[in-house]
Amino acid sequence: MDDLYVGVDLGGTNLRCAVVRRNHEIVQRFECPTKAVEGPNHVIDRIIDGINRALEKSGCGAADIKAAGIGIPGPINQEEGLVYSAPNLPGWNNVPLAGIIQNRVGIAAFVENDANCAGWGEYAVGAGRGCRHMLMVTLGTGIGGAVIIDGKLHIGRDGTAGELGHVCIEHGGRLCGCGARGCVEAYASAPSVVRRFWDLVNAGWESPLAKSSAAVTCQDVFSAAGAGDAVALYVVKKTGEYLGVMIASMAELLNPEICVIAGGMILAGETFFSAIRETCLNWNGHPSRTLSILPAELGANAGLVGAADHARVRTGG
Amino acid sequence: MDDLYVGVDLGGTNLRCAVVRRNHEIVQRFECPTKAVEGPNHVIDRIIDGINRALEKSGCGAADIKAAGIGIPGPINQEEGLVYSAPNLPGWNNVPLAGIIQNRVGIAAFVENDANCAGWGEYAVGAGRGCRHMLMVTLGTGIGGAVIIDGKLHIGRDGTAGELGHVCIEHGGRLCGCGARGCVEAYASAPSVVRRFWDLVNAGWESPLAKSSAAVTCQDVFSAAGAGDAVALYVVKKTGEYLGVMIASMAELLNPEICVIAGGMILAGETFFSAIRETCLNWNGHPSRTLSILPAELGANAGLVGAADHARVRTGG
Repeated sequence: MDDLYVGVDLGGTNLRCAVVRRNHEIVQRFECPTKAVEGPNHVIDRIIDGINRALEKSGCGAADIKAAGIGIPGPINQEEGLVYSAPNLPGWNNVPLAGIIQNRVGIAAFVENDANCAGWGEYAVGAGRGCRHMLMVTLGTGIGGAVIIDGKLHIGRDGTAGELGHVCIEHGGRLCGCGARGCVEAYASAPSVVRRFWDLVNAGWESPLAKSSAAVTCQDVFSAAGAGDAVALYVVKKTGEYLGVMIASMAELLNPEICVIAGGMILAGETFFSAIRETCLNWNGHPSRTLSILPAELGANAGLVGAADHARVRTGG
Repeated sequence: MDDLYVGVDLGGTNLRCAVVRRNHEIVQRFECPTKAVEGPNHVIDRIIDGINRALEKSGCGAADIKAAGIGIPGPINQEEGLVYSAPNLPGWNNVPLAGIIQNRVGIAAFVENDANCAGWGEYAVGAGRGCRHMLMVTLGTGIGGAVIIDGKLHIGRDGTAGELGHVCIEHGGRLCGCGARGCVEAYASAPSVVRRFWDLVNAGWESPLAKSSAAVTCQDVFSAAGAGDAVALYVVKKTGEYLGVMIASMAELLNPEICVIAGGMILAGETFFSAIRETCLNWNGHPSRTLSILPAELGANAGLVGAADHARVRTGG
């Protein structure tokens, strides 16, 4: 039998567990709602249940698994396996999750930030495979990311590297949720896309989408752009432009081969990506002009596969 | 005798050569004008003469030297020892400098970008000693930098990492010399400091410095700030603020322990550094708030010491 690992992707809404081969193939997976509101003890029970169900479906036991990696939506301490906190998981304060899982399931367990897991998954087997230096940008309610340097996940001094959402692209600009001004998250996250759409409509731009519903989502704006809505199209292009400025800046610093972009927005395809690429091409530095900007390939599996492979790396496997 | 290396710092104005011990101590150094206008052949002759004079002063010969490192003010190819070009060295196009030096002096030679050499010097024995991840910012006519990750110089895919001057801090903002808009170099380089001073004076702000001379330099502005000139003081603080925005952004990406700042501006001391630090402290990310921002310690020797130690690293010494 191949070496087997467990990957866990603990989200604020859904919990995913999988048994993953060393070659990154998912053997079996199990998914359930996180029910985060019930607090850490119940969520931990569900993680353990999820791991056991994935094992069961795969026809193997804890003893067949080399290690488990758990992706966490918040800051963690890699060495101590501690979850400091998680904005979308109420009550999670300094939870020694790796130790708990290890004791109760009998598998060596490791925690890592979820964007880092997804980045590592894309590097190992997705859009970034084969490169040495990679940047990952995850677009959603917030903007996150991961940095791969010389084939290794770069976590920084205390594990908080990759906070791409709080890179400044406009000094003194839009107010970000973090309290600072000008962060790229205030320009290119899903809520920022919706906000820009309404700003334009309120300024007198006409869009059929604005008439269809009051509760326009980021996905609605991107879909409308695909269907030719001029306001939505403008919003998608501006979003790509703002992201491009951030990506060009990071490329000037790190000169990576590839920047992988993940999240629902990438479904918008060429309109979105060409706005990002054009901004980087028009930047005058060699690192920006020669950077490959690619959509993520693994979708929701990136976090699972990356968490499992992270556990492999941590155990020297 | 200790292991000995040669360090060369090839600037647009001055050429410095030194014999350096493995413990980073400079044994002897030799300095002369580069006379860049005479073209690569004459400059190469002067590099060779400079190395020989430093050897002579140190009482040793080529056979006593393990390797030589040469810092170049422009893009290079580390593997091939090639200088692609150098804006301040006319006629330098694809010069295979490392091979030429190796053949004519009889010492294994390696080229590296000068900001990378200075960054490596500060990391090895200056303000960054003892840390794992370090950012270096060099302030002058342009803005450059270096990135140390996990105790290694990060050069990126093709050796051009660390181009900190072309990180965007204000999308669509001031025109940079590179042709793009909003680069930090357009806000915090020496010429940008002078430009901001005159912008304020032309807008009606009154400064004794403006009356003293038409050819105000960046150093004049920083000196006047030290002497209490309110306009100059404002300019110094704004310069620190703009730099702080860039440094905070890079910290969010990389979560380094230390950011070292080099160049003549650091002589301005506390006024300048507190503006940089305050901006980073007011950024809301953990990596920015916990970053140590320190002045470089080695001055003009950073490049020499770093080039020599780079040669040690390249030869596995």
